[in-house]
Amino acid sequence: MKEALEGVKALAFDVFGTVVDYRTTIITEGERLAEDKGIEIDWAAFADAWRGRYRPAMDRVMRGELPWTNLDALHRTTLDELLAEFGVRELSEGEKNHLNGVWHRLRPWGDSVPGLLRLKTRFVLATLSNGNVRLLVDMAKNAGLPWDLVFSAELARAYKPDPRAYRMLQELLMLGPDEIMMVAAHQSDLRAAQELGFRTAFVMRPLEHGPQAVPNLRADPSLDVVATDFVDLARQLRV
Amino acid sequence: MKEALEGVKALAFDVFGTVVDYRTTIITEGERLAEDKGIEIDWAAFADAWRGRYRPAMDRVMRGELPWTNLDALHRTTLDELLAEFGVRELSEGEKNHLNGVWHRLRPWGDSVPGLLRLKTRFVLATLSNGNVRLLVDMAKNAGLPWDLVFSAELARAYKPDPRAYRMLQELLMLGPDEIMMVAAHQSDLRAAQELGFRTAFVMRPLEHGPQAVPNLRADPSLDVVATDFVDLARQLRV
Repeated sequence: MKEALEGVKALAFDVFGTVVDYRTTIITEGERLAEDKGIEIDWAAFADAWRGRYRPAMDRVMRGELPWTNLDALHRTTLDELLAEFGVRELSEGEKNHLNGVWHRLRPWGDSVPGLLRLKTRFVLATLSNGNVRLLVDMAKNAGLPWDLVFSAELARAYKPDPRAYRMLQELLMLGPDEIMMVAAHQSDLRAAQELGFRTAFVMRPLEHGPQAVPNLRADPSLDVVATDFVDLARQLRV
Repeated sequence: MKEALEGVKALAFDVFGTVVDYRTTIITEGERLAEDKGIEIDWAAFADAWRGRYRPAMDRVMRGELPWTNLDALHRTTLDELLAEFGVRELSEGEKNHLNGVWHRLRPWGDSVPGLLRLKTRFVLATLSNGNVRLLVDMAKNAGLPWDLVFSAELARAYKPDPRAYRMLQELLMLGPDEIMMVAAHQSDLRAAQELGFRTAFVMRPLEHGPQAVPNLRADPSLDVVATDFVDLARQLRV
């Protein structure tokens, strides 16, 4: 382990894609729903399209075209658009709300819970996610994610990669930026953290976009740690 | 259980005095420190005096006489005052900082962890404390308090009983006020929650102020639940 990492006291985790597998969960729940309702729909395409509208929706908020809107509400707007585009007219309001809640029920990658439990013995584990607080609390309770602190962009009213989200977490933890390591499967998250002086760990999630996707797993050499999963991260951090 | 309580989904806990026994922890750590340093001091009186300056310090912030100041910093100011008043001149800056950190290391009442673990199977468990986030995170990690959400007055920049702290928690949880039950050993906390429509549970902590104190344990009849401890609370809430 590099000497510079010995001062790390807290790990800040990106969540969607890094800790949980949104794509498989949406496909699984979607297929069950479609069977119940007797409809046919390509849930892999639906999951990818839903996730694809995530960044543009947050960008509308950050450009001031929308007032502050939490992720549950952004997801509901994009869900309604996609249901129309995919020609799904069979869902009641209750069923749409339940489907929108799938983000609260996302399943963790297999190494997430064992890796986090091990990391928790040495570090403060915080989420640093664009998911709203309620979503993250429900997800943690459902999946057994042992966070010490559920922190959300909602508290800063600024979506990542806006620096205000990272800085607010740093202030609450009363740590220097080099005492916090951002953990993410996305290099954009890590770059924003790095610019503020955080340490960085890139965790590869080659299946985030499905078995057919060709993800960019070429790690920027300036990143502090590159790990294959959370258990490997714990090993590299000598936990 | 009253029918009105069946809709409760989250419990919001006062922490100092309700979950943890600050008085005994301060006395125990203080006595150890005094022995190391060869000084004599009445730590029971010191603990009571330190806690006694808590409300006036927060009131100065809420009246605008001080800019927003977190509880760690308020505790440090009042600690310095008390060390001078008790005639303690033997402590280094590092020792004073360590002593101030005792609030991060407070020990839970014996029923707190087992009661919370049982309540966690049915309810979202959140702190609603004037302690700052870092203090609450350290305390939870140290004492094994299984919070789903660490929420602090620091996030609202308003100390309880200011309604902004309670309302912000309610908004983050996306619940109606009658879906949240405030749990506290102090009726002032419960009154403020009740005025906003929260449900209320009064948990008696007869030893909070020490074995000689005569606490007011006469529960206001408008409170929803009166419990002897957290295990009794779980039983009354049918967990």
